[in-house]
Amino acid sequence: MEKDTVVNIKIEKAETSKINEVDFSNLSFGSVFTDHMFICDFKNGSWQEPTIIPYQKLSMDPSAKVFHYGQAVFEGMKAYKDDQDEVWLFRPDENFHRINKSSARLAMPEFPEEYFFDGLNQLLKLDKQWIKKGFGNSLYIRPFVIATETGVSASPSTEYKFIIICSPAQAYYAGEVRVKIADHYSRSASGGFGFAKAAGNYAGQFYPTSLANKEGFQQVIWTDSNTHEYLEEAGTMNVFFRIGDKLITCPTSDRILDGVTRKSVIQVAKDLGIQVDIRPIKVVEIIEAAKNNQLKEIFGSGTAAVINPILGFGYKGDKWELPKLEDSYASTIKNTILGIQYNTIEDKYGWRVKVD
Amino acid sequence: MEKDTVVNIKIEKAETSKINEVDFSNLSFGSVFTDHMFICDFKNGSWQEPTIIPYQKLSMDPSAKVFHYGQAVFEGMKAYKDDQDEVWLFRPDENFHRINKSSARLAMPEFPEEYFFDGLNQLLKLDKQWIKKGFGNSLYIRPFVIATETGVSASPSTEYKFIIICSPAQAYYAGEVRVKIADHYSRSASGGFGFAKAAGNYAGQFYPTSLANKEGFQQVIWTDSNTHEYLEEAGTMNVFFRIGDKLITCPTSDRILDGVTRKSVIQVAKDLGIQVDIRPIKVVEIIEAAKNNQLKEIFGSGTAAVINPILGFGYKGDKWELPKLEDSYASTIKNTILGIQYNTIEDKYGWRVKVD
Ligand SMILES: Cc1ncc(COP(=O)(O)O)c(C=O)c1O
Ligand SMILES: Cc1ncc(COP(=O)(O)O)c(C=O)c1O
Repeated sequence: MEKDTVVNIKIEKAETSKINEVDFSNLSFGSVFTDHMFICDFKNGSWQEPTIIPYQKLSMDPSAKVFHYGQAVFEGMKAYKDDQDEVWLFRPDENFHRINKSSARLAMPEFPEEYFFDGLNQLLKLDKQWIKKGFGNSLYIRPFVIATETGVSASPSTEYKFIIICSPAQAYYAGEVRVKIADHYSRSASGGFGFAKAAGNYAGQFYPTSLANKEGFQQVIWTDSNTHEYLEEAGTMNVFFRIGDKLITCPTSDRILDGVTRKSVIQVAKDLGIQVDIRPIKVVEIIEAAKNNQLKEIFGSGTAAVINPILGFGYKGDKWELPKLEDSYASTIKNTILGIQYNTIEDKYGWRVKVD
Repeated sequence: MEKDTVVNIKIEKAETSKINEVDFSNLSFGSVFTDHMFICDFKNGSWQEPTIIPYQKLSMDPSAKVFHYGQAVFEGMKAYKDDQDEVWLFRPDENFHRINKSSARLAMPEFPEEYFFDGLNQLLKLDKQWIKKGFGNSLYIRPFVIATETGVSASPSTEYKFIIICSPAQAYYAGEVRVKIADHYSRSASGGFGFAKAAGNYAGQFYPTSLANKEGFQQVIWTDSNTHEYLEEAGTMNVFFRIGDKLITCPTSDRILDGVTRKSVIQVAKDLGIQVDIRPIKVVEIIEAAKNNQLKEIFGSGTAAVINPILGFGYKGDKWELPKLEDSYASTIKNTILGIQYNTIEDKYGWRVKVD
């Protein structure tokens, strides 16, 4: 990352590494963490000295505001190691700007750019051996901010912690995914904070998703909370529909996360000569297309899996299966993005950013 | 509380009390906590042994799900001490049922009734000297549940902590309150979890409220996220409107918290011979009534203040002031409810429950 300023980060190294206890061929997503974490406190109106310390528990007062009023935002990004042992990030500026957008909507202070990038850089250098080579392997990076002021009164916290933790990951395979299109429950409101990567946007999805699971669907595609007629996004993915040769995805809004993968998919698809329509999509349009065999693909886009093909969907009791395609848009686009991420193809976009 | 079962609660008493350090005549709401807390862990599919321990910090893994996916619900209730030093709760069954409703919507396990009531009872007995006599004094009680399983994958936690902390409170005076009626931002979606007392419902309100503050309003009254034409509730209060001699409040829904004070106000008002209409209320209706001098009162209802008179409101740039009334419904109803809470009048409803 070629940032000019270098922040003074106090580093306390772990005495021993846990890396030998980890079976890198058998990782469950997001469950093992590296030796170090980045942490920076906000108090008295400003961010204090950033530090890197051994991964460790936090001492939290039971009245800390994050537990009661939900001021918590996060990001999800990955680092990749190429064959020359170089470590790369993918469009990290996007994550940096997004976490601050999320924070602002939740009345939380924005984090300084140089703290973010210098902190991330130094953390990744320290835990570099946790990033394994090979297509699919990566280090999942989780920056997050939580409100730590004590006191059970419903007002914005005056104290926060900005933290980065990292978890080694293998290729993400979500299994066969069929989705239920929401017809009753919703994820977010117009005028709400659905566009923010805020903790409060996730807990509400678990129960409706568990109901969908019982009907045989792995995930839910959320629709607008007003009419349930328009397709929006999935729990942790934006969604794309291929009708005939066109790729369609809905516009972002204050209800929808502006996914980094989504915007990369749109760009790559266009450059592959695919027509991409960004416009509201009605559920009935998808169902009509499915009936006429024009619905060729549905896929989700997100950092974890890049692209997740969706094999079928259900809506109000009816179910549809999608055709199995040889040359899917999903796999072509995914391979291009993976190639950029793992430094195996040219990156004409400047999306790949070296850690050094 | 006359519950039959007595749960085995392991009690570890604080070695010394902090009570002498507290200035009870100068308390800031929700900032000082009593000597003990109730805590019970959920793991391996069940609630473990409940304990009461000295109030202390929690040791939390940075990847605990509450920080990332917002599984956190809470309650707010109060204990009151009468002139005979007896301690009373107000409709605690309502809070118990509501926290479990909130938990269920967030895919969190429900808490057993006898654990809740025995835990609360024993905690209040232990910290009884923190409850001061005198109208207005109370002990604010904050039960809450947080997801503690480690791991950054967006799925329901398998581990939780149920905690009760208590904070001594004086009469709650919010100062002069004028409200902004929301015309852009929203609190919750149809099909969402606005009815739950979930942490995720609060953080999103702070930023829009800060904008309202800049326009001279202390709070926001939320409207439906779809049209912003219907009045719903305030940040931590349900709202009532008096037009002529009628008291009007909107029905509860999946977007609105089913307030214990709200239902008590409705009951008390009816028994005082006041006509109470529970129906959707349009913003334009309130504005018309204000123009015709028929809008006599607006007040919020909630555990903290019981009833909070609202002196004026604004909508899309226009502002209205309400008349100053001698015999307001607000004060008559508030005095009745306070009388029941402090055991100074008969409680024909059976709302007052003794702690012993
Ligand atoms: C709600 C939601 N939508 C979409 C996405 C995809 O965003 P990105 O491509 O930036 O990972 C995510 C995050 O992964 C998400 O949490
Ligand atoms: C959003 C919201 N509405 C209304 C209320 C009032 O509910 P209750 O009367 O049960 O305190 C509260 C809580 O105090 C609240 O948080």
